Amino acid sequence: MTTITRPKHHDDLIAHLRESATLGSVCGLLGWDQETYMPDGGADARAEQSSLLAGIAHERATSERLGALIAACEGDAELTGDPETAAELREVRRSYDLATKLPGDLVREMAESGSKAQQAWKKARENDDFKAFEPWLAKMIDLARRKAACYGTPEGGEAYDALLDEYEPGAKAAEIEAVFTPLGARLSAFIKDLADHGTPPSDAPLNVKVPEAAQHAFGLEVLGAMGFDLDAGRLDTTAHPFCSGFAPGDTRLTTRYRDERFTDALYGTMHEGGHGLYEQGLPKDTKFGSPLASSISLGIHESQSRMWENFVGRSRQFWVWAKPIADRHFEGALDAWSVDDMTKAVNTAKPSFIRVEADEATYNLHVMLRFGIERALLRGDLEASDVPNAWNGRFEELFGTTPPDNRRGCLQDVHWSFGLIGYFPTYTLGNLYAAQLWETILDEVPDLESKMERGEFADLLAWLRDKIHTHGMRYRAGELCEMITGKPLGPDPLLRHLERRIRPAYGL
Amino acid sequence: MTTITRPKHHDDLIAHLRESATLGSVCGLLGWDQETYMPDGGADARAEQSSLLAGIAHERATSERLGALIAACEGDAELTGDPETAAELREVRRSYDLATKLPGDLVREMAESGSKAQQAWKKARENDDFKAFEPWLAKMIDLARRKAACYGTPEGGEAYDALLDEYEPGAKAAEIEAVFTPLGARLSAFIKDLADHGTPPSDAPLNVKVPEAAQHAFGLEVLGAMGFDLDAGRLDTTAHPFCSGFAPGDTRLTTRYRDERFTDALYGTMHEGGHGLYEQGLPKDTKFGSPLASSISLGIHESQSRMWENFVGRSRQFWVWAKPIADRHFEGALDAWSVDDMTKAVNTAKPSFIRVEADEATYNLHVMLRFGIERALLRGDLEASDVPNAWNGRFEELFGTTPPDNRRGCLQDVHWSFGLIGYFPTYTLGNLYAAQLWETILDEVPDLESKMERGEFADLLAWLRDKIHTHGMRYRAGELCEMITGKPLGPDPLLRHLERRIRPAYGL
Repeated sequence: MTTITRPKHHDDLIAHLRESATLGSVCGLLGWDQETYMPDGGADARAEQSSLLAGIAHERATSERLGALIAACEGDAELTGDPETAAELREVRRSYDLATKLPGDLVREMAESGSKAQQAWKKARENDDFKAFEPWLAKMIDLARRKAACYGTPEGGEAYDALLDEYEPGAKAAEIEAVFTPLGARLSAFIKDLADHGTPPSDAPLNVKVPEAAQHAFGLEVLGAMGFDLDAGRLDTTAHPFCSGFAPGDTRLTTRYRDERFTDALYGTMHEGGHGLYEQGLPKDTKFGSPLASSISLGIHESQSRMWENFVGRSRQFWVWAKPIADRHFEGALDAWSVDDMTKAVNTAKPSFIRVEADEATYNLHVMLRFGIERALLRGDLEASDVPNAWNGRFEELFGTTPPDNRRGCLQDVHWSFGLIGYFPTYTLGNLYAAQLWETILDEVPDLESKMERGEFADLLAWLRDKIHTHGMRYRAGELCEMITGKPLGPDPLLRHLERRIRPAYGL
Repeated sequence: MTTITRPKHHDDLIAHLRESATLGSVCGLLGWDQETYMPDGGADARAEQSSLLAGIAHERATSERLGALIAACEGDAELTGDPETAAELREVRRSYDLATKLPGDLVREMAESGSKAQQAWKKARENDDFKAFEPWLAKMIDLARRKAACYGTPEGGEAYDALLDEYEPGAKAAEIEAVFTPLGARLSAFIKDLADHGTPPSDAPLNVKVPEAAQHAFGLEVLGAMGFDLDAGRLDTTAHPFCSGFAPGDTRLTTRYRDERFTDALYGTMHEGGHGLYEQGLPKDTKFGSPLASSISLGIHESQSRMWENFVGRSRQFWVWAKPIADRHFEGALDAWSVDDMTKAVNTAKPSFIRVEADEATYNLHVMLRFGIERALLRGDLEASDVPNAWNGRFEELFGTTPPDNRRGCLQDVHWSFGLIGYFPTYTLGNLYAAQLWETILDEVPDLESKMERGEFADLLAWLRDKIHTHGMRYRAGELCEMITGKPLGPDPLLRHLERRIRPAYGL
């Protein structure tokens, strides 16, 4: 609780930020609707709407008035003397500096091209037609380069860092590479060891047919138990699952269903549910628009989704609780399998083509693949037209196999189509943060594992709310990690976790 | 085709209008989402979003720059010498004058209160709790009075006319009353005659149980045959059906389903489909934002919905085509009834409580009831707290019975909750326009009735596109009606139509 009196320039700043966030929330709805319910014929109009609103939002985010309000607050010793307000102003300043470096025309062009490129990507993926997407990819890469040039390359860094900073404040590509390289080496060794000496668990329990409606009902029940407030959110179906926590009281998740392998949708739902719990836990009711009600970084956001998806969802404890519920919804489809069978089946580590369907261990190799390609694209070492070859070649190196087509190769992800470049590494940062936090959680939340066997996740959620969600952006990611866990981020907890879970599933 | 060269001030005007329309289309999506998929928890944020965008839109609709552009075009003899452009400028001027009379604060307050009042109305209707809605109704009436005061009362008119003009340009309450009064008298006499001397048709064919999914599939097939482009539109479910043609290529309809009386949803769908066909027929692809791509008036809009719902949908010819289709979707539920049974069952005229479920004839009495009450509210002859009594008393006079509760009385309509006052009379104007147009259509579209028996509605739609849709607001409603039908609007065609359809159903 802050007890200082708020001067008018701070009130005005907060009001301005809240309006900007409200505009942003409308853009969020436009994006959500585009993926869920918009008819195809509305695509051009949607691009026009998004472009117009992005322009208006950019105007406000870069206005001289906002600059003056920030400066007035920064010059107010009572405000800067309050640690919470000082953190708020630090992040407001960072956003303002980032926003003012981008000209309005570029922002509009990115929004409009992104919307059209995304439509093109959808069709290209459907038809396995990379050529149809190639000009759009080239366009988005060009826009990303122009954006990076506007931001400017940090001292001793590279253009990619400028983009990365938007998603993971302060992170550097070279530093990430320094963590990813040993992590990759140890993961490869681990996977080779499993292949050479282990017996892969049977995936039969995952190959039962479950109707979409039953999967949806099961997913909703799991979300409810996790503590996701469905009166302040939704769950819909899209080609690429996402979470959009666009407004106070309105956090929307999506997943996708296949008749077989119901765990894809389940873990998609738990993953987005983890993001959604973070969004619902941010203090938006009172502070919407302030960095104090915003997420720290995508890495931390991802740590929340990965924790629920993997650390909770793939545990034996989870299946002790969830299997009877699945049995009820799935009308006996899983009768032939035990809790141990389920647990083993969802703890594998082997090569596969689709990132979002990859197991918890090899997922990180998928991320490294994309990280390498987008860095090369940014540097100009690779052209858009070379992406399929580069993808397949690097895939062969990492996984020992080649995707059979581009749908299962470089066309599988939506990200690049709307200009999300520099985003992928945050997924693996998320895994690393989740693993390190989880070790502390097991120490600090009494009896968590036995509570999980009863579907009681309230203490876990309360811990996450208290330690992470409630702070918004008050602390930087690395700082918060060290505060909570007592150590800087490292690869060991993730590797320990993977070994502990997956080796027994392979009989090792 | 206009061949004049467009000067820069006209291009700038058109670009400005298009941006305003695009902002409006975003507001349209916010409204659609609020009714369809928004979680309850998002209501406050939605009110904030709507209010903010309404404020921005109002700012642009009232800007000095827009005023200067209009003035420059009005002073350009080449533009005003072109009849189409002159009509465009006439309507742009009218909108600008209307918009500049409303202060931004009032516009924001209307948007925000309307959003909250609508939420309150929803709950109040659910709980049959008028007291919970009363303060919101009082608030919306107060806002409507303030709005009417800003517009100013036309010479020799009343405050209500100022509101009416927004929906039905140039119409006057006293003139409407002058048509409604004899129409009401002749309708009452007709209904009494039916009750005294006729035999009501059996409604058994409407009381079969039909699952929602089958009704939805049937509705979609009918919409498709009508010519509604489902790649540029949708059909969803809401408490109160509506059509939102908010953007080029994006026209969304809603309906509601009950297990019984599938014709409620069918005719709701055909009604909104008629609105949707008008929206899809306006030349928005090239002229979005210009009055030349906007609908003339709500009365003309309603004439399109009523034509498809009643003149097409309740005809024997329609059922010759549609009954086999319904039979296919409904799996034999209608087997016991013939085409004649269906036709008779949907051509009744008897008192009922719910306007949107009322038959084609008594519907107009429902409209007259609301028209009287809202005029009295505007004049201050009635307070919000008196509405239930006034409603029930007047209902008794018109229908000879009293609603059993407010849910089926004054709480049934969404309109007043978001400030739509002066809107109801346009429904009956729609019936009157539809009837008069239909007589001309039967003269001018060869073999229409036999085409309808084969589900061939393309010639009808082409006629509507050519005579009405394509013109946008080039002509005023009365002018267009007289151009097309050769006569000013009168009550005779509607009364002739009702007598011709309904008397045989009653064996008269």
